Amino acid sequence: MTLHDTIRKLGDQALAASRKLVNCSTAKKNAILHAMAAELDAQRASIKAANERDVEQATASTMAPAMVDRLTLTDARIDAMISGVREVAGLSDPVGKKIWKRTRPNGLVIEKKRVPLGVVAIIYESRPNVTADAAVLCFKTSNAVILRGGKEAIHSNLAIAKALQEGGEKAGLPKNSIQLIETTDREAVRELVQMDDRLDIVIPRGGESLIRAVVEHARVPVLKHYKGVCHVFTDASADQESALKIIENAKCQRPSVCNAMESLLVHQAIAAEFLPKVAAFTARKGVTLHGCKASCALLPMCVPATKETWSTEYLTLDMSVKIVKDVKAAIAHINTYGSHHSDAIITADKRAMKKFLKEVDSAAVYVNASTRFTDGGEFGMGAEMGISTDKLHARGPMGLEELTTYKYVVHGSGQIR
Amino acid sequence: MTLHDTIRKLGDQALAASRKLVNCSTAKKNAILHAMAAELDAQRASIKAANERDVEQATASTMAPAMVDRLTLTDARIDAMISGVREVAGLSDPVGKKIWKRTRPNGLVIEKKRVPLGVVAIIYESRPNVTADAAVLCFKTSNAVILRGGKEAIHSNLAIAKALQEGGEKAGLPKNSIQLIETTDREAVRELVQMDDRLDIVIPRGGESLIRAVVEHARVPVLKHYKGVCHVFTDASADQESALKIIENAKCQRPSVCNAMESLLVHQAIAAEFLPKVAAFTARKGVTLHGCKASCALLPMCVPATKETWSTEYLTLDMSVKIVKDVKAAIAHINTYGSHHSDAIITADKRAMKKFLKEVDSAAVYVNASTRFTDGGEFGMGAEMGISTDKLHARGPMGLEELTTYKYVVHGSGQIR
Repeated sequence: MTLHDTIRKLGDQALAASRKLVNCSTAKKNAILHAMAAELDAQRASIKAANERDVEQATASTMAPAMVDRLTLTDARIDAMISGVREVAGLSDPVGKKIWKRTRPNGLVIEKKRVPLGVVAIIYESRPNVTADAAVLCFKTSNAVILRGGKEAIHSNLAIAKALQEGGEKAGLPKNSIQLIETTDREAVRELVQMDDRLDIVIPRGGESLIRAVVEHARVPVLKHYKGVCHVFTDASADQESALKIIENAKCQRPSVCNAMESLLVHQAIAAEFLPKVAAFTARKGVTLHGCKASCALLPMCVPATKETWSTEYLTLDMSVKIVKDVKAAIAHINTYGSHHSDAIITADKRAMKKFLKEVDSAAVYVNASTRFTDGGEFGMGAEMGISTDKLHARGPMGLEELTTYKYVVHGSGQIR
Repeated sequence: MTLHDTIRKLGDQALAASRKLVNCSTAKKNAILHAMAAELDAQRASIKAANERDVEQATASTMAPAMVDRLTLTDARIDAMISGVREVAGLSDPVGKKIWKRTRPNGLVIEKKRVPLGVVAIIYESRPNVTADAAVLCFKTSNAVILRGGKEAIHSNLAIAKALQEGGEKAGLPKNSIQLIETTDREAVRELVQMDDRLDIVIPRGGESLIRAVVEHARVPVLKHYKGVCHVFTDASADQESALKIIENAKCQRPSVCNAMESLLVHQAIAAEFLPKVAAFTARKGVTLHGCKASCALLPMCVPATKETWSTEYLTLDMSVKIVKDVKAAIAHINTYGSHHSDAIITADKRAMKKFLKEVDSAAVYVNASTRFTDGGEFGMGAEMGISTDKLHARGPMGLEELTTYKYVVHGSGQIR
């Protein structure tokens, strides 16, 4: 079979499975999820053996130790994967929920209700636990899923997908509800994302280059999770002690994630007083500062900013620092150089706050809190598929509801126009 | 300036306008809409003169009379355009509306609220009134819009856009909120739909080939309004008198629109009794039937169906007819050959009804009513941009709410993670 035909076959099978999944009740889906969790535990030895093959190949290659670590499945990580599956069983099911219901003057009863998207494709990189995380979120929302993981994790991914399918099928999971692309051929991604008569959505999870490559070739709608260049703007009226705590938290608590702060903006009126306080904690925490000219003049340890500084997502203990004229200049900077992810203002000034919250064009805008809260769990949505930087369909944390669409169900008694 | 630079300049200007539009109150927007309506009236003579140029060129070319008619702006059509603008002023503004608000255990107050999409591009064909219709729906939702109409209507479109801009600006419309691409160069569309750093969404309104061409080249998310291959399935238990009225209405009341019925499915148990009744009204109304073998055996006037019949959107007084085994076969046929737009079952059987409503994967599913009701106005949503056949972001009638996205506004008091 050609690669084209192989991928289309997966698409046909997924579509057929999705037609069956619409009839799966919430109780049945939850029973299937628990069966999947049990099977992951039962097949732990073979999952670990498969993972060892991947890790051996990775170690023998030139893969960086941090990447090898991401790839490795310890018992603790398998436990976390299993409890993740059980957690999704405990979440509320959005499918079938009523969005609104209206009776029209002609007597038609129109109900707008949540239904599955249909067939979802997830393209991801090296971490094999995404196989389980993504598959169960799609299944809980009655979607069929086609998974495409990184080639370095192929044996681990196949073993995890096998356990999910086998465990699920014991409890009545429709065949082919969860499929993993077995070939590591790069062309498979192109075939996949062009299959717009079978797939309803593609979600690439990974670095910017992966996402751009998918967007370039896709005919299927893509839900993008681009980078997080998040800002904290410290206004002239800010409580500076609180601001310092928020900045330290947003930058240092977990620098490698997309909702960590990358760029600090400071109102010119307090820069001379406030920036040395910032420098004190950054020196203590080992944070490298990349500053505008005015910041460098105040803080000798600042590395001068380059043209790229303001749009850089460091994901490390590096931080851009810029002194701005006022809230208007802060907003303009964020809308120009940011990534429309999460941005905060620290202020006691109601007018500045309102202006910032209204004019900053980001998925999440904060006043007097850390950007680190942009997260499905922290927002009370449960587990998430990621953080969308798109504006269409889903923006910000993408939970179960964002894996659904809706349909209009219309009850009549012979109405005509 | 190159075409690339010309289009990017429009993008820059639209983005700048969109930043101003977020601060436009509903009252101000409505005042601007009334000023636009008044200016359309005031510039009626020059709009008609521009339209005459288009109509003359069209008549001199080989354009079909039906197309020339679509292009022509009579006084009545200009009046309808003006009252359309005033009607949008009267609609409820979704921008700023709260979707939900939560206080988290840590004290963070999270509000999910509606905000504009930002910059919207509309690509459309020959009808010049779309210029006004689309522009005011985008403006009412605080979006900047870039319009690209058909080249045969370029003078009409420019005159209408000019009146909207000039009228709007008298009442405070930010400059460049409404822009129309002046060149008729086909390459302009490609430049436009690849400008994903400026545009938030592209909405192509027109035939399938236009939409496919946009999807092929787009990097900007596309909201698709593909064809409507709508079905009515008459179940064995149907009230046949009511079914006949619904079928006649769905097919004949306005055959040229996307929610008109194209395909009739009939349960085998009633086919011999019911199909001759269908043939009686279709003969009277001049409807040509394209039937499956079994239908042709019952109805001698049937044209035998070809491979293409079942997925054809006629938009004329033609109708496909197929006898099916049961509701399951009807659902399978609709999901395979339909366009996921609007499909109806006529039945008195609750089980068949439930199965049909759940398993038919379409934007609108009906029981005992005409498919012709799939419409923003009929659904109580007000004016619409079109009927989306997409599942992402907007499905079915696309009203004002569907021209917005949301953001999370988070109020804290120093919270950190």
